[in-house]
Amino acid sequence: MIEQLAILAPGLLGGSVAMAARARGAARRIVIWARRPEVRDALRSQPWCDAVAETPEEAVRAANLVVLAAPVEKIIELARQIAPALPDGVIVTDVGSVKNRLCRKCRAALPPHARFVGSHPMAGSQKTGWENGSAELFAGRTCFVTPENGADAQAAGIVTDFWRALGGRTVSVTPAQHDEIVANISHLPQALATNLCDLLAQKNPAWREHAGAGLRDTTRIAASDATMWIEIFQQNRDEVLHAIDQFQARLAGLRAAIDHGDWPEVRARLERGKIFRDSLG
Amino acid sequence: MIEQLAILAPGLLGGSVAMAARARGAARRIVIWARRPEVRDALRSQPWCDAVAETPEEAVRAANLVVLAAPVEKIIELARQIAPALPDGVIVTDVGSVKNRLCRKCRAALPPHARFVGSHPMAGSQKTGWENGSAELFAGRTCFVTPENGADAQAAGIVTDFWRALGGRTVSVTPAQHDEIVANISHLPQALATNLCDLLAQKNPAWREHAGAGLRDTTRIAASDATMWIEIFQQNRDEVLHAIDQFQARLAGLRAAIDHGDWPEVRARLERGKIFRDSLG
Repeated sequence: MIEQLAILAPGLLGGSVAMAARARGAARRIVIWARRPEVRDALRSQPWCDAVAETPEEAVRAANLVVLAAPVEKIIELARQIAPALPDGVIVTDVGSVKNRLCRKCRAALPPHARFVGSHPMAGSQKTGWENGSAELFAGRTCFVTPENGADAQAAGIVTDFWRALGGRTVSVTPAQHDEIVANISHLPQALATNLCDLLAQKNPAWREHAGAGLRDTTRIAASDATMWIEIFQQNRDEVLHAIDQFQARLAGLRAAIDHGDWPEVRARLERGKIFRDSLG
Repeated sequence: MIEQLAILAPGLLGGSVAMAARARGAARRIVIWARRPEVRDALRSQPWCDAVAETPEEAVRAANLVVLAAPVEKIIELARQIAPALPDGVIVTDVGSVKNRLCRKCRAALPPHARFVGSHPMAGSQKTGWENGSAELFAGRTCFVTPENGADAQAAGIVTDFWRALGGRTVSVTPAQHDEIVANISHLPQALATNLCDLLAQKNPAWREHAGAGLRDTTRIAASDATMWIEIFQQNRDEVLHAIDQFQARLAGLRAAIDHGDWPEVRARLERGKIFRDSLG
């Protein structure tokens, strides 16, 4: 159990961290700081919030674990801001969905006596805001913990135990491995869904009337927040471009097989795709 | 109400046509032919089947409306086989998911005294077989009715009324328009989902462990039957290739915007996609 947990700038994820930590007894005392005064007022009455700090520095001063729950660019700002106030031995983590650049910058911003280990709980939603949070948000979901090679193993272990206590299924990879994985399984699908919807809107928006369940499923994530995705594409640009390139090359292969009437090749691709999809459950 | 409805080679769709026609009183008498003797035996005891014919010719001899419910290539064979047995004034339709080439071939196969109007109820499922059929399969679903320009308006009206009686939302377009629409809203999404799964399987199948709801949604249709999709890609090759080309060109534009850091352009694409997806409901 974490003795004192500080959560800075709680949105959907940060709020859910507090709710889950309280519900599952993962932290004894939970201190939260939010940027806007009206949010701080609202937080004071929540059963999963023991104290509301007026500043980030105040929130972290006696913390054992600090969770930076802001959007990616703000995470780095917050790390710089709390650096002088961090107590000896404190562990700092975050919930940013891109890790390599962010972890490097956070480590650079923090003093040597603080230990940074990045996290990424894959528990987003189209909903945002701590009001939509849930103590069950992380239950059974993949939570990446991304220590650098040669990072403090004890700190990584504590962060891993924390996400497990919140119900997550933890996976330990380096920040660079993390970014390659999410570029392929999350950022590429978003680019494809957005691009398909953008294409159909331009071709003939009236076709939406004929959308079946397949199109609805395939495009659901295109309804996600644009600002969040711009930030992700910015943070993970190289890996996203690489994933798009690989997708385009493979789609060109499928196109050529259809064009040349190479139906055994088309079948092989359909069947490999089906085997992978069936394995997702 | 159709006086006598003949359904040839019922699978999921043909079986559901019989069930819905009985449940909704859309046909007085329902005669079915199936290729395999054991299926004919099983059909005899179904409450939505008044008679089982031993041959396709026998099934259509006194029919007012014939529904060819076989896979696309078999539909043309069946049309040729029943041609000599069709009574005067009979209307023939089908449930094939590609229409232009198929409608041309069916019309060529049928005698002048039979009237052909193609149909495509967009009510597929990953399940197959008449045993998985449902009287509610067409409820609220788009059913394309595809008369040729200059086709028999009365026959098109009867086919339209029939699908409406089964609960469908009918849309009348030419066979060529139909094939362009489904290439974009159905066949392209299938190619993308298959290609994404094929790519991920080749990159690292272990990543499946980290799949979130977004990847699951985006790839769900990749689990569809390969044989069915090969037939669709064969039948609608030109339109599918064109849709893939347009998708690739647009994706190249998104890729370039990310690569050049043109975030206003990336935002415009994300927002256009979101508006289209939000409009699907």
